[in-house]
Amino acid sequence: MMRANRGLSELRSISFEPNIMKYAEGSCLVKFGNTHVICTASVEDKVPPFLRNKGMGWVTAEYSMLPRSTNTRIERESSKGKLSGRTQEIQRLIGRALRAIIVPKKLGERQIHIDCDVIQADGGTRTSSICGGYIALAIACKKLIFERVIHQSPIIDSVAAISCGIVDGTLMADLDYNEDSNAHVDANFVMTGAGKLVEVQATGEDGPFTNDHMNALMLMASNAIKIITKKQAEVLAEVDFDQ
Amino acid sequence: MMRANRGLSELRSISFEPNIMKYAEGSCLVKFGNTHVICTASVEDKVPPFLRNKGMGWVTAEYSMLPRSTNTRIERESSKGKLSGRTQEIQRLIGRALRAIIVPKKLGERQIHIDCDVIQADGGTRTSSICGGYIALAIACKKLIFERVIHQSPIIDSVAAISCGIVDGTLMADLDYNEDSNAHVDANFVMTGAGKLVEVQATGEDGPFTNDHMNALMLMASNAIKIITKKQAEVLAEVDFDQ
Amino acid sequence: MMRANRGLSELRSISFEPNIMKYAEGSCLVKFGNTHVICTASVEDKVPPFLRNKGMGWVTAEYSMLPRSTNTRIERESSKGKLSGRTQEIQRLIGRALRAIIVPKKLGERQIHIDCDVIQADGGTRTSSICGGYIALAIACKKLIFERVIHQSPIIDSVAAISCGIVDGTLMADLDYNEDSNAHVDANFVMTGAGKLVEVQATGEDGPFTNDHMNALMLMASNAIKIITKKQAEVLAEVDFDQ
Amino acid sequence: MMRANRGLSELRSISFEPNIMKYAEGSCLVKFGNTHVICTASVEDKVPPFLRNKGMGWVTAEYSMLPRSTNTRIERESSKGKLSGRTQEIQRLIGRALRAIIVPKKLGERQIHIDCDVIQADGGTRTSSICGGYIALAIACKKLIFERVIHQSPIIDSVAAISCGIVDGTLMADLDYNEDSNAHVDANFVMTGAGKLVEVQATGEDGPFTNDHMNALMLMASNAIKIITKKQAEVLAEVDFDQ
Amino acid sequence: MMRANRGLSELRSISFEPNIMKYAEGSCLVKFGNTHVICTASVEDKVPPFLRNKGMGWVTAEYSMLPRSTNTRIERESSKGKLSGRTQEIQRLIGRALRAIIVPKKLGERQIHIDCDVIQADGGTRTSSICGGYIALAIACKKLIFERVIHQSPIIDSVAAISCGIVDGTLMADLDYNEDSNAHVDANFVMTGAGKLVEVQATGEDGPFTNDHMNALMLMASNAIKIITKKQAEVLAEVDFDQ
Amino acid sequence: MMRANRGLSELRSISFEPNIMKYAEGSCLVKFGNTHVICTASVEDKVPPFLRNKGMGWVTAEYSMLPRSTNTRIERESSKGKLSGRTQEIQRLIGRALRAIIVPKKLGERQIHIDCDVIQADGGTRTSSICGGYIALAIACKKLIFERVIHQSPIIDSVAAISCGIVDGTLMADLDYNEDSNAHVDANFVMTGAGKLVEVQATGEDGPFTNDHMNALMLMASNAIKIITKKQAEVLAEVDFDQ
Repeated sequence: MMRANRGLSELRSISFEPNIMKYAEGSCLVKFGNTHVICTASVEDKVPPFLRNKGMGWVTAEYSMLPRSTNTRIERESSKGKLSGRTQEIQRLIGRALRAIIVPKKLGERQIHIDCDVIQADGGTRTSSICGGYIALAIACKKLIFERVIHQSPIIDSVAAISCGIVDGTLMADLDYNEDSNAHVDANFVMTGAGKLVEVQATGEDGPFTNDHMNALMLMASNAIKIITKKQAEVLAEVDFDQ
Repeated sequence: MMRANRGLSELRSISFEPNIMKYAEGSCLVKFGNTHVICTASVEDKVPPFLRNKGMGWVTAEYSMLPRSTNTRIERESSKGKLSGRTQEIQRLIGRALRAIIVPKKLGERQIHIDCDVIQADGGTRTSSICGGYIALAIACKKLIFERVIHQSPIIDSVAAISCGIVDGTLMADLDYNEDSNAHVDANFVMTGAGKLVEVQATGEDGPFTNDHMNALMLMASNAIKIITKKQAEVLAEVDFDQ
Repeated sequence: MMRANRGLSELRSISFEPNIMKYAEGSCLVKFGNTHVICTASVEDKVPPFLRNKGMGWVTAEYSMLPRSTNTRIERESSKGKLSGRTQEIQRLIGRALRAIIVPKKLGERQIHIDCDVIQADGGTRTSSICGGYIALAIACKKLIFERVIHQSPIIDSVAAISCGIVDGTLMADLDYNEDSNAHVDANFVMTGAGKLVEVQATGEDGPFTNDHMNALMLMASNAIKIITKKQAEVLAEVDFDQ
Repeated sequence: MMRANRGLSELRSISFEPNIMKYAEGSCLVKFGNTHVICTASVEDKVPPFLRNKGMGWVTAEYSMLPRSTNTRIERESSKGKLSGRTQEIQRLIGRALRAIIVPKKLGERQIHIDCDVIQADGGTRTSSICGGYIALAIACKKLIFERVIHQSPIIDSVAAISCGIVDGTLMADLDYNEDSNAHVDANFVMTGAGKLVEVQATGEDGPFTNDHMNALMLMASNAIKIITKKQAEVLAEVDFDQ
Repeated sequence: MMRANRGLSELRSISFEPNIMKYAEGSCLVKFGNTHVICTASVEDKVPPFLRNKGMGWVTAEYSMLPRSTNTRIERESSKGKLSGRTQEIQRLIGRALRAIIVPKKLGERQIHIDCDVIQADGGTRTSSICGGYIALAIACKKLIFERVIHQSPIIDSVAAISCGIVDGTLMADLDYNEDSNAHVDANFVMTGAGKLVEVQATGEDGPFTNDHMNALMLMASNAIKIITKKQAEVLAEVDFDQ
Repeated sequence: MMRANRGLSELRSISFEPNIMKYAEGSCLVKFGNTHVICTASVEDKVPPFLRNKGMGWVTAEYSMLPRSTNTRIERESSKGKLSGRTQEIQRLIGRALRAIIVPKKLGERQIHIDCDVIQADGGTRTSSICGGYIALAIACKKLIFERVIHQSPIIDSVAAISCGIVDGTLMADLDYNEDSNAHVDANFVMTGAGKLVEVQATGEDGPFTNDHMNALMLMASNAIKIITKKQAEVLAEVDFDQ
C-alpha cells in the first residue's frame, strides 16, 4: 500500500499557532493535516484535595470534540449527561503525558488545566492534543515565571506524541482517519524531547501482531517525534513575554 | 457615559467567515468584536418523533462555550453531567429564532442541527450565535438545493439578533461583557431582514424600567439589525456551489 | 375572533387565597380561571455561596407541575432525573421577577425560596406563579418584621405578570391554554405596581410580528397588571400578624 | 401516655373530597388531620413492556411531597436528579396495595397511574395515599364503565391503610408526625374492605418488640380500617356519572 | 403441596464462613442453599453529618447482586447510573435490622459499613444478608475491642431473618427462588436472638390473606430464627483474636 | 531490590477454578496470589445495534470491584451513579483482548458478556480478568458447541495478560499492589497463546523510560504469558460437557 501525497513515515503538514486565545494563560492551535485542536492552559491557585498542603502542583487535562468536527455529527456529551469511556481514556492519557515532564514541587500549590477541544478531526486527535497541550502548558509556565509567580520552570523536558500503525500490512506514521479505520494495528507513542518513552499503547483488535512489528512501530514513532520536538522548540522560542 | 472606541449605537467590528468547517453542510465563524462563535449546520434525514410522517422538517440548535472562552475557566457541562438553565434557555432561543424564517414543509422530513460553539466570549454570544447560525443554515439549504435534494429554499427571510441595554443610564447597542455586567437593563432582540420582530427579551434585574426605555431600545436594535442583515446578505451572495 | 365569556382585554376570574399552607412562612393559592398554583415562601438563614459574608439576602424560585395538572398526564421530572429546559427557564424568570422588587441588604443574610407548584394548568402558569409568588414573599417578609427578625421590609414595590398574545390576528390578554396553543405571538410581561417593566418576553415562533403589535401588547399588559396589582394589595391588606 | 384530643385508637378527622381535579379520570383530596394528599388516576391505553399482548392491565403509583408540605422545606427530588429510597419504597407499596384488589384481565390492556402528591404532611402520608388512591382508582374505573370502555369493574374489593405504633409504651392508631417521630414501633397495615391483610410492615428501629405487641397493633389497625372502609364506600356512593 | 427434599418448616442447608476476606474488619460468606452472599464490615472513623459531635456511631448497609448471580444476567446498577427501588428498599431494611441490636453510644463516633454482595441468588437474599451481615458486624466489633479501640461491645443481642410464605395454599419457611415466584403471600421476619421482632414485612400481591395466616407465618419464622441464631452463636464462638 | 518470596520474573501462585457459578454459561474464579476475580460468560441471543443483521457476534466485558476488595473500602459506582474513567478503561481493554481471538462470523448473531468481579484485589486485577475471562469465554463456547447451537468454535487462539514494571530500577513481573504503587514504569501486555501481541500499554508517569527497558519488559511478559497459557490449556482440557 502506498500513500498518495506523502511517504509512509512522513508526517502530515503540521503547525502550532501559539497564543490564539485572548484569556488563557497559554494556548495553541495545533494542526496535523485536517486535524485541528485548540489547546488552552488555565492556571488555578488551588490543587485537588489529595494534594492539599503538600507544596506540590498538578496538571490535568480535558478533551472534547465539537459535534461537527467529524464527518457525521456526534452527539454532545453534555447532552448525554456523561463522558464516554473513550473521552475519559483520552483525557487521562493527555494528563499523564504532560505530568511526565513536570516537577510538581516547582509548580507550587497550583493546578494547570489543559483543555483540548477538537475543532476538526481527521485521525490522531489524542496525539495532536498532547503535542499542542505541551505548547500551551509551556507558555503558561513561561508566563508564571515572567510574572515572578514562580522562579524556575517546572518543565524539565518537552513531550510529543504520534500514532503509527499497520494498514494492509504496511507500516505508516501519523495515520489520518481513513488509514486509522483500516489499521490492523494502531499504536500511540508518547516520548520526551530527550527521546525517552512516556507511554506506549498498541492495539491489534483485528488480530495480533509480532514483536518485530512492535519494534518497527516504535522506531518509526521515535523518528516522527524528533521532528515534532524540533517544531515545538522553534515555536516556543518565538513566544516572548519580555517585550 | 461614553464609549472609548465607538458610538453608543455603533456595532463592534463584525465579520462572518463562511464555510470554515470541512465536514458540515453549512458553517460560519461569526465575530462581534472579541466574541467569536463557530456555527455549523448539520442535515439529518430524520425528524424528531413528534414530526414523523407529517412531511415537515425541523431546525434545532445547541450552544456551548469552550472552557476557556472566558476570563475565568468555566467547568464543562459534560463533566458536570447536565446542561445549565442558561445553556438550555439560550439554545431554545436560537432554535426559535431560526425556525421563525423557515417553512417546514419545504424542508421535507429532515432536521437541521445548528451547533453554536463559543470559542471566545465578550458579551452577546447568544445574539452572535443567531446571526452566524442563520448563515450556516442558509448555506446548508443552498447546498440541499444545489444537490437537488429539495427544489425550493425553505428560507423565507433572513434573521439576526442584537443586544441593547442601559448602562449607567445610557442606552447602548451591542454590549460587550463589561458593559453587559454593568447594565441595568439588558435586552435581546431578534428580527427578520424585513424588519419584523421574532423575539424580544428585556430584563431589568437591578430594577425596573419604563415603556419609553423599552421603545428606545427597540428602535436602537432595529437600526443595528439592518446593518447586520446587509452584511449577512453580502456574505451569502459570495457563497456559491455552482463552480 | 371573539371570546365566548369575556372581552379580549379582560382577565379570567382571579383570586389569591393567602396562608393556605400550615408550615410555610408565607403562602398563597393563586387562581387565574382554571390555572391554580400553590406558592409558598420558605425563609432560610443561609445564602448561596456567592453571597456569603456580604450582608445581603437572596430570593430564588422553583416551579413544578403536578403530573395530572394537565389534560394528558406528564411524566415527573424527578422520575426523569432532570429538569426540562422549560422548567428551568420558568423558574429563572420567576426568581428574576421577584428579586426586582427586593433590596437585598434589607433582607440580611437569608434566602427566601419561592416554590410554585401548579395544581391545575390552563395557560399562564408562569405569570400566575409570579403574581402568587409575590403574595407569598410579601407575607413572609411581614412575618419576619412581626417577629422582629428584620426591621424594615426589603420589598420596595409589588410585582405582577400577565401573558398577552395574538390569536388569529386578534390581540388578547390572559390567554388560556387553548388560546395560547393557537397564538401566533405569545408575550409575557412582568411589571411593578408603579407601572414599570421588569421583564418582557415576546415570541413569534409561527412568524414575526410588527413593532405596532409589540406596543399594543405592552399597553394591554399594562392595563391588566393594574387590575392584578390592586387585587394583590387588597389581599395583603387583610393579612395581619398582630392579632 | 394520653392524647390531648382523641382516644388512643381513634382516627384523626378524615375526609375524602372526590373529583377535585379537572382533567384526571379519577381524583380525590384525602385528609387525615393535617395530612392532605391529592390523588389522581390517569388512564393510559398502553401497558408496560412486560405485559404487552397479554390482555392484562396494570396499576402503578407515584408519590411526591411538595417542598413545603413539611415544617422544614425539603429539596425537590427533581432538582436532586433522583428519587430517594424512601420515595421509591412508598410508591412501590402504594402500587402493590392497589393491585391487590384489581383483576388485571378485566382492565384490558391499559395502565392506570395513581399519583399521590402530598400537599401537607403530618404523619401517615403513605397510608393516606393508599386510602385516597383507592378512591381515585375506583372513580376512574366507574368512568371507564360509564363510557363503555370496559364492561365489568376490575375492582373486587376496597382497600385502605393505617399506621399504628407504640409511643412511650402506649399503643396508638393513626400517628401524627410528632407521635411517629417518637414511636418505638411503627407499623403500617393495608387491608381490604373484607377485612383481609394485603401488606404488613412493622419496624422497631429503636429496639425490638414482642409478638403480643404485634397482635395488638394488628387488631387496632383492623378496627381503624373498618371505619375508613365505611367512609370510602359512602364517598364512592355519591360519585355518579349517569346524570 | 410437598417439598422434594425438606420439610415445609425446614431450612435449607445453611452455613456461615467467617473471615473470608483479607482486608475487611469483619466478613462472612453466608449460604442458604444456593443463595450465597459475601458480607463485609468496614469500620470508618467518621459518622454521617447528622450524627457529628454527638458521640454516637452508625451502622449502614449496601446490597448488590453480581450480574450473573441469577439465571438470566441482570444489568449492573453502576451502568444504569442508579439504584433500583428494590435495591434501596433492601439495603434500608438490612441497615435497620442491624441497628436494632446496637447501642450507638458504645460504638463511639465511628461508622460500620455492611456490604452484602450476592454471588449467587436462589431466593432469600435479603434475609441471608441480614444473617451474614450480623456475623460480619459482630466480628468487626470483637476486633475493635481486641484492639482496645472500644471497651465494651455495642452489640446487645444477635439478629437474624427468614422468609416464610404461602405457596399453593401451603405455608413454608425459607423459600427458594422458585417457591418465592409462586408464593401468594411472601413475608420476611427479622428477629433478635432473644426472640423479639425487629421487622415484619408481609405482602399479598396476588390477593389478600387472613390474620390467622399471618400468625402462622410468624410462628414458623420464630422457630426458624431460633435455629439460625444457634448457628450464628456457634460460628462466632470460634472466631478469636487472642491467639 | 529483591523480592522476599519469589524471583523477579516469577509469577505469584496462580489458579483457575472453572464452573464455579451455577447459572452462567461459563465461569471461572481466577487467582493471582491475593488477587481473586470471578469471571462469568453470559450468552445472549442479541447483538448490539451496530451489528444487527450482519450475521456476526460480539464479545463485551464489564469490570467491577467489591467495595471491600481493597485495603480501604471504596465507594460503589452504582451509588455514585457513574462509572469511573479507570473502570471504563479496564472494561474496554478486557473486551478488546477477548475479541482479538474470536471470529465473529462463527459466533453467529449472539453476544457474550464477560463479567469480571474483583472479590479481592492485590494488583493485576485487569490482567487477571483477561486471563480468567478467557476461560469463562472458552467454556461458554464449548457449551454452545456441545448444545449444537454453533458447530465450530469461534475461538482461534488463547489469550492471556500480565503486568510487568520497573520498581526501584529493577524489572519484575506480575506486580502485586505494593510493587505497583512504587513502580516507575507500569506495563500491561496482552498476548495470544501463539505468542503474538494483542495489546501493549506501558506508562511512565513518574518519569520516562528507554527503548531498552521497553524491550526487556516485553521479553519478561512474553515468558510469563507462556506459563499462564499452559495453565489455561490444562484447566480447559478438564472441562467437559460430554459426560
